[in-house]
Amino acid sequence: MSPVQTTRESRLKELKSAIREIPDFPKKGILFYDITTLLKDPKSFSAILEEMASPYKGAGIRKVVAIEARGFIFGAPLAHRLGAGFVPIRKPGKLPADVYESTYSLEYGNSTIAVHQDAIGRGERVLLVDDLLATGGTMEAAVDLVKRLGGEIFGLAFLVELLDLKGRDKLKNYDIQSLIQY
Amino acid sequence: MSPVQTTRESRLKELKSAIREIPDFPKKGILFYDITTLLKDPKSFSAILEEMASPYKGAGIRKVVAIEARGFIFGAPLAHRLGAGFVPIRKPGKLPADVYESTYSLEYGNSTIAVHQDAIGRGERVLLVDDLLATGGTMEAAVDLVKRLGGEIFGLAFLVELLDLKGRDKLKNYDIQSLIQY
Repeated sequence: MSPVQTTRESRLKELKSAIREIPDFPKKGILFYDITTLLKDPKSFSAILEEMASPYKGAGIRKVVAIEARGFIFGAPLAHRLGAGFVPIRKPGKLPADVYESTYSLEYGNSTIAVHQDAIGRGERVLLVDDLLATGGTMEAAVDLVKRLGGEIFGLAFLVELLDLKGRDKLKNYDIQSLIQY
Repeated sequence: MSPVQTTRESRLKELKSAIREIPDFPKKGILFYDITTLLKDPKSFSAILEEMASPYKGAGIRKVVAIEARGFIFGAPLAHRLGAGFVPIRKPGKLPADVYESTYSLEYGNSTIAVHQDAIGRGERVLLVDDLLATGGTMEAAVDLVKRLGGEIFGLAFLVELLDLKGRDKLKNYDIQSLIQY
């Protein structure tokens, strides 16, 4: 292992240790990974964004698309760092102009997300960003929206990935980056 | 007028012209200022963040506090640019650890926002960020939360201000910046 790898690994390990684990939230039996303890520390927040941006530098990303609400916390600074435009994917009824919607399954019932129809130009290179890759349902719906707009999906970036939930299986046609795994 | 001022003014005018006006959203009689057309343009998004950050450079801001969800789009990159930590203010039930809540009046009924009790250290210098200053009710509640945590409020930053609604009157003890006014 090279010294560079070792440094990156120890940095990621340190970032992981700054995440707070909260049992039984939002309901009994769920262990919630609370990233607010990571975000509030200037050095950690800066390190996360640096690491997340690094694979996409010089890749010609034109739009960073992020999912409401926690996805905005990473997507907006990444757009800024990469010199890209920022596109929010939101819950229905929030975006005021013409939208496309995509509905996906949750454990109980469904959920829907929306994007403006003029948010992305045909063939524009897109990076999709969210805080968490769990079952992959939300990101699959977001991918569907970007494809309907004609965007070229360059990659999907997450801060945290829950490996047991196998979200990657739903997204196997895409390049996926997650900084921290459980 | 100096050439520098002229340049800044013409830049802000250009940014304002990139905002899309949508009548009767979210309901009849309301003119909605849609900032997504500004965000999706890389140069405009970058220019906004540069202008918003500029008064706070070197001011020793330790935490940038932003209000869910659109506030995150500006607050997170500003925290990154200013070398500060990021603190989200969210709707009730979203933050998993102990919170303080603050309730404020809307046109019809009330709304509540929450912040983690450990989000800000006593005496830390704080910048509060949101996309829009309308009646000022939401920001007034956010100020209340930051004060309960012992934060020292350095300023309040908005992208857009609706002058007719006199939000500044509710927030007159604080330094307020808005880039674009209607």
